[in-house]
Amino acid sequence: MITDKLIEKIIEMQNPTCVGLDTLFDYLPDDMKEGVTTFEGVAEKVLEFNKKIIDSVYDIVPSVKVQIAYYEMYGAAGIKAYYETLRYAAEKGLIVIADAKRNDIGSTASCYAKAFLGETQVNEQTDKAFPSDFVTVNGYLGSDGIVPFVEQCEKHDKGIFVLVKTSNPSGAEIQNVVLENGVPMYEYVGGLVEKWGESTVGKYGYSAVGAVAGATHPTEAARLREVLPHTFFLIPGYGAQGGNAEMLKSCFGKNGLGGVVNNSRGILCAYKKNGGTYYDAARAACIAMQKDLSSVIGKMGE
Amino acid sequence: MITDKLIEKIIEMQNPTCVGLDTLFDYLPDDMKEGVTTFEGVAEKVLEFNKKIIDSVYDIVPSVKVQIAYYEMYGAAGIKAYYETLRYAAEKGLIVIADAKRNDIGSTASCYAKAFLGETQVNEQTDKAFPSDFVTVNGYLGSDGIVPFVEQCEKHDKGIFVLVKTSNPSGAEIQNVVLENGVPMYEYVGGLVEKWGESTVGKYGYSAVGAVAGATHPTEAARLREVLPHTFFLIPGYGAQGGNAEMLKSCFGKNGLGGVVNNSRGILCAYKKNGGTYYDAARAACIAMQKDLSSVIGKMGE
Repeated sequence: MITDKLIEKIIEMQNPTCVGLDTLFDYLPDDMKEGVTTFEGVAEKVLEFNKKIIDSVYDIVPSVKVQIAYYEMYGAAGIKAYYETLRYAAEKGLIVIADAKRNDIGSTASCYAKAFLGETQVNEQTDKAFPSDFVTVNGYLGSDGIVPFVEQCEKHDKGIFVLVKTSNPSGAEIQNVVLENGVPMYEYVGGLVEKWGESTVGKYGYSAVGAVAGATHPTEAARLREVLPHTFFLIPGYGAQGGNAEMLKSCFGKNGLGGVVNNSRGILCAYKKNGGTYYDAARAACIAMQKDLSSVIGKMGE
Repeated sequence: MITDKLIEKIIEMQNPTCVGLDTLFDYLPDDMKEGVTTFEGVAEKVLEFNKKIIDSVYDIVPSVKVQIAYYEMYGAAGIKAYYETLRYAAEKGLIVIADAKRNDIGSTASCYAKAFLGETQVNEQTDKAFPSDFVTVNGYLGSDGIVPFVEQCEKHDKGIFVLVKTSNPSGAEIQNVVLENGVPMYEYVGGLVEKWGESTVGKYGYSAVGAVAGATHPTEAARLREVLPHTFFLIPGYGAQGGNAEMLKSCFGKNGLGGVVNNSRGILCAYKKNGGTYYDAARAACIAMQKDLSSVIGKMGE
């Protein structure tokens, strides 16, 4: 069961870090950017950068999150690099989270679900479009936009993370609006997530239907941890966005489990601040993050 | 101004129809599907199908909406066919709506906005990833997830449609939840849309920031038309999803303007019901839809 597998890797490495491969072309060292003029050129260099980062960290972090926007902006060439990045990370044994925040009505959601979690049929053949272990989704369309993903989770042992309380400042405009029963929207959506996950709870008590809960909003995260006992969290916002270990502590239960913490810029761009090669600096940043997180979370899995 | 341009085409053709190129491989005639075994093969045939549909309808409909899920499921090859479809439709003078329902925090939303509405920079060069006139977006992340799109709208004369009240049955689970001030969520989000569009109102009184309002929910659509005077509607749900002309009448003002009505399966698969070639049947379906819509909306632009 995929969430169990993610948790086991976290326990083994004592590290709930997720490396965010939100690889902006600007993050690359100047000598890699030089002379590149086409989308194909960018795609090739970004993939090379990603592979070196993956090679450098796969033995100390359990997972990567790959944000598709940073690839989509380079058209079909970028999307091919996205696919190759997912594939390479999976080959190295990493749990792969496709950050795509997909959402649509049932029939269309089903296409997205097959693209990221399942298989696409072509007459009698099948192939995988964007093979991932988890994909992020947006629940604004309600159950019939989410159930097609849950079906693929059940069929192929995959998972999703539903946006509940995002890390950005103005998420509150919709997510913190209070409903007539006094419950804020994020908590209400969290309740739906808990329900959507009912059929897939694994041996650690967490389902395959997780929630996005930003490190930048500790009060909301603490409340969500309390009311969503079976929901595993994907926690963005650590580092460049202002979240720190103390702020996200409440996402974790007494056994040191409950979520995976994403960091993108802080790892990919560590070399710009600390010097050295980008891949060595990324590894050092992952080690520093592991220490920082475990200092507040404690021993994971006990 | 892009919404003005769309409205002028609607007035000229007396037709507020949007052809939904949600081209499932299964929609293609058997002889086009025969022997295809790869994503590249599907992409080629879907593009051929789309081009023939476009050739057959571009002089009688103002716009097409291309749902990216149906292309993404075939990986990078599908995405290339998506790009080529957008390009071909634009060449034929159609207003092109990319239905992608993208959403993310500010920095990432900015990448999506550039990909669909603006330009992507590669060192000193720029190129367009998915050139569209409008892109659909999901507002769950609030203003800082939407403003990057509005900025590209202003810079490149483009538009967006924000999900407000979707056509699917369970959209109500979140969209119809009542807030503590008695306002349902969809109306509250609609209010944000009206605000996000303030800086881009055109000569017909509608802004570049439109709303998705499903034909399947006439009560909500009528309310939205009343409270969102500057918001142009993208209206899905006509035909296969159960919406009809009478149900969506309330989306339109007294001058017969206010929205564009999408139909996908009813046009792409008309040949399966009515016989003939798929492209002739699609044209006939567009003509029938024009008659149906104008019989309830009346003369557009008076």
